[in-house]
Amino acid sequence: MTRIALLAGIATTSLCAAGAASPALADEGMWTFDNLPTAQIKADYGVDLDAKWLDHVRLSAVRLSGCSASFVSPDGLILTNNHCVVGCTGNLSSGGKVDYVKQGFRSKVREEELKCAGQTAEVLLSITDVTDQIRTASAGKSGEDFIKARDGAMSAAEADICGKATNLRCQAIPFYRGGEYKVYKFQRYTDVRLVFAPEFDIAFFGGDPDNFNFPRYDLDSAFLRAYENGKPVKTKNFLKWNPNAPKEGDVTFVVGNPGSTQRLLTVSQLETLRDVSIPVGQLQRSEYRGRLIQYGKTGDEARRLAGDALFGTENSFKVYYGRQLTLNDQAFMNTKRAQEAELRAKVAADPALAAKIGDPWAEIEKAQTAYADNYLVYRQLEAESGGGSRLYNWAETLVRAAKERAKPEAERSAAYSPSRLARMERGLQTETPVELPIEKIRFEHWLLKTREYLSPDHPAVKVLLGKDSPEGLTEKAVNGSKLGDPAVRKALWDGGLEAIEASDDPMIQLALRADPQAQAIRKIWEAEVEAPVDAAAERIAQARFAVYGQSVYPDATFSLRLSYGKVAGWTYRGTTIPAFTRIGGTWDRATGEAPFALPQSWVDKKDALNPETVFDFTTTNDIIGGNSGSPVIDAKGQVIGAAFDGNIHSLGGAYGYDGSVNRTVVVSTAAITEALTKVYGMDNLVKELTGK
Amino acid sequence: MTRIALLAGIATTSLCAAGAASPALADEGMWTFDNLPTAQIKADYGVDLDAKWLDHVRLSAVRLSGCSASFVSPDGLILTNNHCVVGCTGNLSSGGKVDYVKQGFRSKVREEELKCAGQTAEVLLSITDVTDQIRTASAGKSGEDFIKARDGAMSAAEADICGKATNLRCQAIPFYRGGEYKVYKFQRYTDVRLVFAPEFDIAFFGGDPDNFNFPRYDLDSAFLRAYENGKPVKTKNFLKWNPNAPKEGDVTFVVGNPGSTQRLLTVSQLETLRDVSIPVGQLQRSEYRGRLIQYGKTGDEARRLAGDALFGTENSFKVYYGRQLTLNDQAFMNTKRAQEAELRAKVAADPALAAKIGDPWAEIEKAQTAYADNYLVYRQLEAESGGGSRLYNWAETLVRAAKERAKPEAERSAAYSPSRLARMERGLQTETPVELPIEKIRFEHWLLKTREYLSPDHPAVKVLLGKDSPEGLTEKAVNGSKLGDPAVRKALWDGGLEAIEASDDPMIQLALRADPQAQAIRKIWEAEVEAPVDAAAERIAQARFAVYGQSVYPDATFSLRLSYGKVAGWTYRGTTIPAFTRIGGTWDRATGEAPFALPQSWVDKKDALNPETVFDFTTTNDIIGGNSGSPVIDAKGQVIGAAFDGNIHSLGGAYGYDGSVNRTVVVSTAAITEALTKVYGMDNLVKELTGK
Repeated sequence: MTRIALLAGIATTSLCAAGAASPALADEGMWTFDNLPTAQIKADYGVDLDAKWLDHVRLSAVRLSGCSASFVSPDGLILTNNHCVVGCTGNLSSGGKVDYVKQGFRSKVREEELKCAGQTAEVLLSITDVTDQIRTASAGKSGEDFIKARDGAMSAAEADICGKATNLRCQAIPFYRGGEYKVYKFQRYTDVRLVFAPEFDIAFFGGDPDNFNFPRYDLDSAFLRAYENGKPVKTKNFLKWNPNAPKEGDVTFVVGNPGSTQRLLTVSQLETLRDVSIPVGQLQRSEYRGRLIQYGKTGDEARRLAGDALFGTENSFKVYYGRQLTLNDQAFMNTKRAQEAELRAKVAADPALAAKIGDPWAEIEKAQTAYADNYLVYRQLEAESGGGSRLYNWAETLVRAAKERAKPEAERSAAYSPSRLARMERGLQTETPVELPIEKIRFEHWLLKTREYLSPDHPAVKVLLGKDSPEGLTEKAVNGSKLGDPAVRKALWDGGLEAIEASDDPMIQLALRADPQAQAIRKIWEAEVEAPVDAAAERIAQARFAVYGQSVYPDATFSLRLSYGKVAGWTYRGTTIPAFTRIGGTWDRATGEAPFALPQSWVDKKDALNPETVFDFTTTNDIIGGNSGSPVIDAKGQVIGAAFDGNIHSLGGAYGYDGSVNRTVVVSTAAITEALTKVYGMDNLVKELTGK
Repeated sequence: MTRIALLAGIATTSLCAAGAASPALADEGMWTFDNLPTAQIKADYGVDLDAKWLDHVRLSAVRLSGCSASFVSPDGLILTNNHCVVGCTGNLSSGGKVDYVKQGFRSKVREEELKCAGQTAEVLLSITDVTDQIRTASAGKSGEDFIKARDGAMSAAEADICGKATNLRCQAIPFYRGGEYKVYKFQRYTDVRLVFAPEFDIAFFGGDPDNFNFPRYDLDSAFLRAYENGKPVKTKNFLKWNPNAPKEGDVTFVVGNPGSTQRLLTVSQLETLRDVSIPVGQLQRSEYRGRLIQYGKTGDEARRLAGDALFGTENSFKVYYGRQLTLNDQAFMNTKRAQEAELRAKVAADPALAAKIGDPWAEIEKAQTAYADNYLVYRQLEAESGGGSRLYNWAETLVRAAKERAKPEAERSAAYSPSRLARMERGLQTETPVELPIEKIRFEHWLLKTREYLSPDHPAVKVLLGKDSPEGLTEKAVNGSKLGDPAVRKALWDGGLEAIEASDDPMIQLALRADPQAQAIRKIWEAEVEAPVDAAAERIAQARFAVYGQSVYPDATFSLRLSYGKVAGWTYRGTTIPAFTRIGGTWDRATGEAPFALPQSWVDKKDALNPETVFDFTTTNDIIGGNSGSPVIDAKGQVIGAAFDGNIHSLGGAYGYDGSVNRTVVVSTAAITEALTKVYGMDNLVKELTGK
């Protein structure tokens, strides 16, 4: 599930991210806890974030898989978003007798709380600067050697600090694009249970039309509980529950884990995203979306399958729509140009710095030509190979890993280190359902678009299709493949390259055929795009550090950050959007037709609910995907809501923060309390939260 | 059928077009026959286009509905593209017994030639400058008065020159955005019969993947014959058939009717197209395309219906993809900026001119803000209302015409003049099939995208949907409407506003509900976007005329033009595309799977065909949609092919010509002769063409 939850895999791309473009504007910034603009916050909002306040908030904050959360009781109770637990409610429903996603989940007593398989909860205990030891280990090295040395030093630093303790986790994280390395040490809870989730129809009321929009009437909240040794964890630090909604202009702090931002990209890189990569992705995504919508009309099971796939597709569509909107905004781009010019001027004014930095902006601009020349081929054959088909991705993983494992360990690429191979092997053996109709749509769409964008004359297209049509090949490959069976995947893994090459599985054969061309474009891409850009970007990061020092925050890396701001609506193209919705407005918006159909529980309790209760509200806090579930905190350090979305303009926050329109969307503690009390009768839970 | 045939309705938008941005580059230009760069052509290619050559070519050129063509025998034989006659072959197949689209049409003797209903053939006899009389009639008038006076004077000029002769047609055409008005007098033939059409699978071999691409192996050619009084027309002027292919570098002339270009748009207008309007259209079109593809999988009839709808949708997608590619090209935009700066500098250097012209560029730039602010609403509610649903469009026409007809004639808008109302009435009574499944996809898609892009909170969305979902409303409105029956439409037209308002037809009710909001945004759009842009653009056209005089050509207006160039391939992003394909290459490309499946006739005659025969070739000629079927002529005035497509870069030709990559794609007379002889046994036709 995505919304503003962290998209799977985004964290790994944060290596491409670095730092803010220039000193932060008012309310801008995803600040690390070891470099907070406390003086600025005091000046702007009159709030003094002293060490006690900060320690308390940090130790109350919880990182989930891809989401953020917070402790809200002394008994390990965790507040997050419903869309952060919908994987859990889905898994718990997989017997088929009960659909917790649709009907929600309510444990009236602790014994009814159910474990969310795979869910962890992490609390940040300490931050240790390990920059020097990483630098020392990798000094004088380059290319693959550099990466191996650096990664080895990072692992060593993690082990130094955490040792073998199983309830701790240490993670070495690069900040400012390698300008700094820190080890984040977490308390780690692996027994996390579901306490409460509302019905999907009220958690995601308004569906895709309302996603990333406002006004909003969503109870996108849920409760988990951390357990240890079979008992609820005793949490000394937790956020006090404030069941009252804030007022317009009230200060708000969001504490959570923004996944990834690219605010340091140069103007030429932003232009490439705007003109080359995002548009093609959106066009293909739109066509795929249309296919899913139409497929969903062919029956009840089709509707369910299409609906699941559409949720992520439509969310991604909107994310990139918002990003494109920002990149197409001339004023935004002019600001970026001015920031870049300022930094370049400051570098030029310092001869020693200028000599050290050189002209990385020109180097990056040059690499953009290679980007444009190679992007379509790279995208279709490598970055998006298989178009999301699980079967093809397994086949590709099996083929590549087998080839690498056939080499002596020292000659393998860094992506096939022993620990990564072990992770791949585990991943391949995980039972994962393959929905054949969706699989066919994905795979055929990929083949069709690959032929369309590369042309039937491209050698790779000829190799892929041979004399087949995309439609015919899809039928053969998807129907004929046995890779849906984990035992088959295990046998092929164990059999190695010999077994792979002898396999008559059509997906394996296809992946074998496609691999040389895919590897070839990957090498071109790494050599002509990634390597020169990375090298240049690191020098830009150094320049920024030299010029602006600690007044900049690093790009998001799914590590704990604090952002500050206030409750506020916004005005765009002449229309003003107020900061609040109230429960009473829900009834006006409800049509009875999906996605504006309320669950029966809400229909039944309409008269009981106070229509004046604030439902959702917007703030100026600077957040991004990964922040889902973050507590929204008032000046006293009490929780007043959970961030669950941004508005459409916040999506451009990937590239830069615009305080006039970027907004965080929050479900209020007021609404949660009202619903728990009046709709769901969760008296024990309310008592735990409020003491009443 | 579209490809580079004129898209329906494009001609009317040519009022928004004006002239080339600056003096033409080598091979650039769609030149009118009364202003040809003959000296330049002589200098560049050593060919002297004397009056005799030009008269002969002009009188051999034929304008079809939306396409171009030429006489190629003394007996009224006409060469054009297959995709220009596929409407005719489709109509002739509508009994259902025979599918001429699929199997082609071959009349071995003249008695077998079949009339193409509605097809006309027009030959340009003369061009008369009527600028002064139009100017005099409209002098001192503005707004609606100006339009009425101008249009009246244009009609009068047409009548002056053609009188009541039924075999003549006079058309007053504005050039250089009203800088000049000319009356084009045509000989008009209304009995046009089908002689030969190949199978669709070889005419459009490669389908969408190959459309606007090259290499190409398409026999996109067909023959018609003009009749008068039941007998073939005797044509003194016709192009001599040259069955030999040209060589690389040979000069080529294309004579035909390019539909519409927008080469005078200012940079700010191009940026608006690039950033605002084209992207949204492409995203919605892609999703619609995906729906059609998936719908086509639900059965044989669905495949046929979806295929028809996809043809136009995929063609449009590629047209705009090519345009976007050009607008995203920084070098192209920089050229446009330089051209604009040059013209502005020349205006500024002439005080009298500067005083007359003012700063129309700034006025247009200002209007672009209004464009961006209003575009989505204008697009969804007005410009694209109904999303292509025939039922909704009929409902909208009935509602609006009834409202206008309820007013005194003097108060009606210009769009509801007596002649236009008469045309509407005829159009409404034409028997037109409504394919309900496609209708539902179109209409639902429109409602879904209107809600998505305007948001559920927009007043117009609330009015449209009420408490319905897009899906539910579509079922009700499409299933419930009786407007598919021409008699019902006639009764509503005859009954006027009273009958309309009393109707319980759900589409009529919807159109009535939607009309006030649609009219409101139309008025805003006209006042804040169109009016200021038109006023400013006219002054830019005057400036260009004053500065560059006759060295510029007017924007395309679906009127006869000559373009010159040469046979040439091109190089893009490091890949060089040769100028020729040969018949032998067809067999390599054929997979047996659509759209790369050859018709049986070609499979059977593989050995008979000379593999060395040039099939298709590319030239540097400057063409655009509407040029489909244009004769490609050699230095001697002989026909060597029919233009049937452009490459992907030619699509950016809407905004400017780039001789390094813009290419016309031609089916050679060599290939046509070879196929007629070896595959189709059309000996009489070959004899008529070649004398052998």
